[in-house]
Amino acid sequence: MPDAAVTGRSARKRQAIMAAATALFLRDGYRNTSMDQVAADAAVSKQTVYKQFADKEQLFRDIVLGVTANSEAVITGMTSALRDAGVVSQAELRTVLTDLARRYLDGVLQPRVVALRRLIIAEAERFPDLARTYFEQAPARAIELIADALRTYAERGLLTAGDPRLAAAHFAYLVLAIPQDRAQFYPGERPSAAERDRHAGEAVRIFLAAYGPPSLSP
Amino acid sequence: MPDAAVTGRSARKRQAIMAAATALFLRDGYRNTSMDQVAADAAVSKQTVYKQFADKEQLFRDIVLGVTANSEAVITGMTSALRDAGVVSQAELRTVLTDLARRYLDGVLQPRVVALRRLIIAEAERFPDLARTYFEQAPARAIELIADALRTYAERGLLTAGDPRLAAAHFAYLVLAIPQDRAQFYPGERPSAAERDRHAGEAVRIFLAAYGPPSLSP
Repeated sequence: MPDAAVTGRSARKRQAIMAAATALFLRDGYRNTSMDQVAADAAVSKQTVYKQFADKEQLFRDIVLGVTANSEAVITGMTSALRDAGVVSQAELRTVLTDLARRYLDGVLQPRVVALRRLIIAEAERFPDLARTYFEQAPARAIELIADALRTYAERGLLTAGDPRLAAAHFAYLVLAIPQDRAQFYPGERPSAAERDRHAGEAVRIFLAAYGPPSLSP
Repeated sequence: MPDAAVTGRSARKRQAIMAAATALFLRDGYRNTSMDQVAADAAVSKQTVYKQFADKEQLFRDIVLGVTANSEAVITGMTSALRDAGVVSQAELRTVLTDLARRYLDGVLQPRVVALRRLIIAEAERFPDLARTYFEQAPARAIELIADALRTYAERGLLTAGDPRLAAAHFAYLVLAIPQDRAQFYPGERPSAAERDRHAGEAVRIFLAAYGPPSLSP
């Protein structure tokens, strides 16, 4: 068999193992998931699982870090619109922030993202380094990138944000916290598009009331 | 032995079993905790455990519902100050809300509360009814009581809140979301008193900028 075909088959098996393990970790937790079960659900031999992943811990780490890397890419894409939008008026700022809020909600409320977040929270004592890596590279990274944009808007006189990082954190949690916290306790539920629109709109209204330019603030 | 002494000893054993089980559930998750281990850690016989709790599920339910009832009592006490404070000016409103925010943060960031919240989130798929009960009677109940108070303040012209429940949810998550979300991923950390003061003060500032009376809003 040519090398490329071997690599392709190997990559497909790796994907199948990671998908099966993710489903099992989410359903049964880390400790109750066995490599035997992962192999059976992925329809590969146990040897194949161990060829790809040294042990269950390595498998768990690779899954969490894969999701983290994916979140990071999504966040970078989402926030690049903030820098490139050439915002120079209050109306444009409101439009850009509302659009960001709406996409941010869609990303964070994906059932897979909610499920993995619950898994990482559940295992945060067993794997504190993974919980930290996820937190730093997903939610905290998004806040940093938003802070960069807010700093620019403040320099243009569109916002008053003495502490852009704190302002960005307030923006992020105004947008996300209500539906995200609910989703943690009701994993099967998801707000409708109309509800997500309303959350996004209200979050931006509150944010601009509190962080608008000096002339508009009380 | 007189009846009261038997009752007292029985209640103490029940407390010891619940304390041991809570620690084990938090450390090992629901599925990995055995009744044998609970009995050993509580220093009682297995028969005593089964006399008090029909099975492991009953034990888990009683622990979560006990914490829920306790949270409810704390919330009722905390928010009763809102109604009794006789707030008639903006300055008084700011003081009352800042005090509420500060106490709310202290309550929610207690290590035991954070740990139980993580446990309920982890087991939300296994016990959806318990997750719902906790959510309705702890965070959602707090928001309802805050909404009642905001409605009164709006009637006195101190706030503009067309939807007092949404305003209350924004207040709650402005206060809590930043440190609470972090606590889920860093269970061993806790913000200092100065950091909690700052969170509370900033949350109230933003809330009043967005929901202040018509004359103060942009």
